Amino acid sequence: MDSATRIRGVLAPVVTPFKPDLSPDSVRFVDHCKWLISQNCGLAAFGTNSEANSMTADERMGLLDALVGAGVDPARLMPGTGCCSIPDTVKLTAHAVKHGCAGVLMLPPFYYKGVSDEGLFRHFSEVVQRVGDSRLRIYVYHIPPVAMVGITATLVERLLKKYPTVVVGMKDSSGDWKNTKLFLDNFAKTGFDVFTGSEAFLLANMRNSGAGTISATANVNAVAIQRLYLEWQQANAEQQQEQLNVVRAALSHKYLMLPALKKTIAIYSNDPEWTRVRPPLVELTAQQGESLAADLRQIGFNMSGLCGLHQ
Amino acid sequence: MDSATRIRGVLAPVVTPFKPDLSPDSVRFVDHCKWLISQNCGLAAFGTNSEANSMTADERMGLLDALVGAGVDPARLMPGTGCCSIPDTVKLTAHAVKHGCAGVLMLPPFYYKGVSDEGLFRHFSEVVQRVGDSRLRIYVYHIPPVAMVGITATLVERLLKKYPTVVVGMKDSSGDWKNTKLFLDNFAKTGFDVFTGSEAFLLANMRNSGAGTISATANVNAVAIQRLYLEWQQANAEQQQEQLNVVRAALSHKYLMLPALKKTIAIYSNDPEWTRVRPPLVELTAQQGESLAADLRQIGFNMSGLCGLHQ
Repeated sequence: MDSATRIRGVLAPVVTPFKPDLSPDSVRFVDHCKWLISQNCGLAAFGTNSEANSMTADERMGLLDALVGAGVDPARLMPGTGCCSIPDTVKLTAHAVKHGCAGVLMLPPFYYKGVSDEGLFRHFSEVVQRVGDSRLRIYVYHIPPVAMVGITATLVERLLKKYPTVVVGMKDSSGDWKNTKLFLDNFAKTGFDVFTGSEAFLLANMRNSGAGTISATANVNAVAIQRLYLEWQQANAEQQQEQLNVVRAALSHKYLMLPALKKTIAIYSNDPEWTRVRPPLVELTAQQGESLAADLRQIGFNMSGLCGLHQ
Repeated sequence: MDSATRIRGVLAPVVTPFKPDLSPDSVRFVDHCKWLISQNCGLAAFGTNSEANSMTADERMGLLDALVGAGVDPARLMPGTGCCSIPDTVKLTAHAVKHGCAGVLMLPPFYYKGVSDEGLFRHFSEVVQRVGDSRLRIYVYHIPPVAMVGITATLVERLLKKYPTVVVGMKDSSGDWKNTKLFLDNFAKTGFDVFTGSEAFLLANMRNSGAGTISATANVNAVAIQRLYLEWQQANAEQQQEQLNVVRAALSHKYLMLPALKKTIAIYSNDPEWTRVRPPLVELTAQQGESLAADLRQIGFNMSGLCGLHQ
């Protein structure tokens, strides 16, 4: 897959529904994914907001099988595959490549802290070599507030030199625009696709040759985010950005975003099953849920597409 | 297993040898474990210094099978079983219980940061209930410098109330004696066994009704640590503690301890295969190795038992 045909734009780290016994609910998962696809939203399934690391490798592969089996185009998929161990990462990555996914979003191994770039380079090298498939496209995942192990520009430079056709982009969830800008300035011209981890930086990213955004908020606000992605050169782009920020604030300022997103889907699809999370996360309390619903009503949040699909 | 017969004393988070292809080397692993057992050292296999999280669940279970298959007494085993996901944690824990292990050392789920005690309580509860075996004994593992997710006294209090026969102790690798003391003062009298994560706190721990230590250094210095564990009430206990600290400093002040421990075993067993680590960790450089060897010679470090076994 050359640069011209790579996956770009808006992707959602798809939230994962769980059944009462906490097993993954593949029916609701596929439903939600299809709705996102219908809104031109790519699927970065098995990300941080997907509770991917609260699932086993087999559970993740089972959901991906269900998704592709349901006819979702793998060219719209960038599943997360980065685990703490090389063999698990290789297994998930090879499985995604075999399915023809556009790419994989790869966390660094995140148990040991303060590891060297040399150690991370060796980790990613082992994965690339063991997967051993020319179709592999890796997007490295920089999310220091959660993983606590980050991806430096030095590491990316070294990976690009050794694996120029494999390491093709990143998701920057540092929440630090200066960091995103550094990667854009250093690598965007060579075809390295930088996705911001929050749509709050989408306009800035597009103005600096970025590739789009992979944002949890896209689970519920994909249409509006997609619109700014397409219209970022139009006169009202900053207004659009501001409106995106208002929705994001309603979802994240008072609550942990993940349970708030699930609650939002539960509210707008009238399906309380969606509120469930796996420990160690905790769903919103009834009171928080009511407060969230009121906040969303107040800003005129519209998610009718989701309502239609899930009812 | 009632309190009187529980595993106590000195345990080693056993370092894991890897073959040239980075697969676990079960022969060297079993050899090293048998040597530790011969020195009255219990085995907290699959801990932080075992690179447990750099291995898959299957690799860990394979090594435990090899160990028990080789005749090592399960009553001397406290394997690490805590993963980010509930199903992986349950699988490893049930496997250890089935083997008759004395207990399991359980990390909290460590991907999400800033999680609540409520979320952690739900996680441990799910694990206890799903394993559903009255033989299960859990030692919670507090290692905030690495896991970045800690175990509070409030959480332990709640777990003890709900699962008094299951949650029986902890390993405190905070490196903060005040924290260890807090747990000792709150829970030791009720039979909750507190192990320090470093032998630097062994004497203090024993003077405060602690249960012993689970320290990486025991991989190479088990005899001396064991001696202080047995003789902590003798007149020379503080001198013994000081001597332990000298060895620990030689192994950890200039280097990351894990590769330094492996290098030490490689030096004293004349077996360079032992130096290998899995990425993202990196082995000591040749120069660091020479410096470590010189430092150990200088302090008169003696590991002849290991030499004899591995040659």
